[in-house]
Amino acid sequence: MSTKLTGPEIFIGKQGNGMISFGSGQPDLPPPKEALENLNIRSDLRYGLIQGEEKLRRALSKEYPASTADNFVITNGASEALDLIFRSMDNGKVLLGKPYYYSYPKILRYANMKPEYTQLEKGKIDFSDFETKVHDCKAVLINSPSNPTGRIESIKTLKEIEKITRDLGIYVVSDEVYKDLIYERENYMIKGEHVITVNSFSKTYAMCGLRIGYLWSNDQRIVDKAIEMKTHTSMNTSLVGQDIALNAMKAPRNYIEKQLKIWRERREMMYTGLSAMGLELWKPEGAFYVFPKIKNPEKFVWDMYTKHKIITYLGEWFGAPEHVRFSYALSMNDIEEGLKRIEKYVDQS
Amino acid sequence: MSTKLTGPEIFIGKQGNGMISFGSGQPDLPPPKEALENLNIRSDLRYGLIQGEEKLRRALSKEYPASTADNFVITNGASEALDLIFRSMDNGKVLLGKPYYYSYPKILRYANMKPEYTQLEKGKIDFSDFETKVHDCKAVLINSPSNPTGRIESIKTLKEIEKITRDLGIYVVSDEVYKDLIYERENYMIKGEHVITVNSFSKTYAMCGLRIGYLWSNDQRIVDKAIEMKTHTSMNTSLVGQDIALNAMKAPRNYIEKQLKIWRERREMMYTGLSAMGLELWKPEGAFYVFPKIKNPEKFVWDMYTKHKIITYLGEWFGAPEHVRFSYALSMNDIEEGLKRIEKYVDQS
Repeated sequence: MSTKLTGPEIFIGKQGNGMISFGSGQPDLPPPKEALENLNIRSDLRYGLIQGEEKLRRALSKEYPASTADNFVITNGASEALDLIFRSMDNGKVLLGKPYYYSYPKILRYANMKPEYTQLEKGKIDFSDFETKVHDCKAVLINSPSNPTGRIESIKTLKEIEKITRDLGIYVVSDEVYKDLIYERENYMIKGEHVITVNSFSKTYAMCGLRIGYLWSNDQRIVDKAIEMKTHTSMNTSLVGQDIALNAMKAPRNYIEKQLKIWRERREMMYTGLSAMGLELWKPEGAFYVFPKIKNPEKFVWDMYTKHKIITYLGEWFGAPEHVRFSYALSMNDIEEGLKRIEKYVDQS
Repeated sequence: MSTKLTGPEIFIGKQGNGMISFGSGQPDLPPPKEALENLNIRSDLRYGLIQGEEKLRRALSKEYPASTADNFVITNGASEALDLIFRSMDNGKVLLGKPYYYSYPKILRYANMKPEYTQLEKGKIDFSDFETKVHDCKAVLINSPSNPTGRIESIKTLKEIEKITRDLGIYVVSDEVYKDLIYERENYMIKGEHVITVNSFSKTYAMCGLRIGYLWSNDQRIVDKAIEMKTHTSMNTSLVGQDIALNAMKAPRNYIEKQLKIWRERREMMYTGLSAMGLELWKPEGAFYVFPKIKNPEKFVWDMYTKHKIITYLGEWFGAPEHVRFSYALSMNDIEEGLKRIEKYVDQS
């Protein structure tokens, strides 16, 4: 059975026909209408700056304290930002939490970096374990809110990470693509000269397929290295994509709050529904994932898919073989119907 | 002086104000009007297929004999295609001509491949040298028409390369981004199960900044490996970019011929003009570069830039320290004025 469940790609194109997908990690909602309104597509499609369009970087710099347009590199999604960052480092170990976003170990290995894991406790960093492992690492990779756990790190932990990495002279790569989807508090952005923040327009503005992400750092050497590598490996990020991203930033300030309200309702329904089935799970505090323990997870994922038209992702893909990931990026109606099918199955098994 | 001339990036943003640039390797012409006509930008910007939009791949497959949509991967320009191809290979040597496109050695080293050079004769492969070096290589990288030499390989040579690499079981990566800009004959596409062709919309359709390229191969393992890596390093290529690229393919069949006529006129003016100055150069047969030998090239490039408002690229960046690269991707008026300034300088030195 497990040979069939090789990774999320097995579910590509399996939507429709009554299938309810708790699989894919992307908003089902449309982008803000401002993104595509009054968009004059440029007819001059000559190369742009490798670093990204100045206007877009300037707009971003207003969202990040103590930054200028020079601190940013616009990339093909957060994925390319991570790829450039780790490829620009000399070989070494990178400390990251387990369970992890399923691309992290691959990105690190492709970049000749070696992943070193700290086991998360209830989806959060156990700083005492983190501390013992961080010393011989070149960098740490933080993802709060987390995919797949839906958990956020406490501000205390984030500050402890800031301090120890600064003291040791270790980079922090902080993947904050879910920073605008936090239910419990404001985002706390990890700060410091040794910090590289990764973000994207994908989740906040519901435009995953446009592939506009970015990195920002106060360390100019990091920025310069990323630009140098990108010059040869992909050149400027799509100019039209950058224009749309800049437009999206015109969305009114309450756009994000409105979105968050929708996500919060969905979270409540998912958390309440799965808890009522007696599943062991952590309450999601950010992003749009819930990551319960499930008995016999391979059988669950396979049966739900083949017999009950429900897509879920195997925890093993995220380094947690006893769990199953549910994305709740779908309508309340679909969540309700999906939960019914899951409950029926769980009750019978 | 040479410390100033570190690479093409020193000329970024130095246009305007009477500057005439023979530097950048991109069409100055606009994209075909079909590219942006009747473009309905999709409001659904969810992830697309990593491999690329099926419609675009199907349209491309009609341009490549014996191919299907499955043989293509749409990438962030030809650069990303090359990056994915070489990163997907196990470490080893790659044989390529010298002078080379300046990104090649970097792309290879970033991918942990080792460049092995065969010295080009008058900008063309010397097959006897090629033959002695190819045996312990993992792949060869062919670029005809060539940047920076503007030369094309003979069909005889291309067939010899096809044969020897097939016999030895070595990959051919054929970068044919200038395939539609050949003045002497039709393009001859290198063929075979072991061949990976790289191309893009950048040069043919004058849309470098859109970053839509692709690779195609009959070897499904190569295609699958590229998709697997792209899944983690950049995900799908910009969906809006792909829509524009597909639109561009609606340009009438004579679009390319019309463009070629313009390029041919420019080539004649450049070749005649530089030849008349007594410079040693090869007649460009494709692309839009001419690559003469120049006495004291660093002084030439620096003086032309600082004293005569002419941008040219140092041959050293392309592995040919005695040469200077001139792109003729600019109007006939600018070429004429530029040639005057160059002639004046050459006469006096």
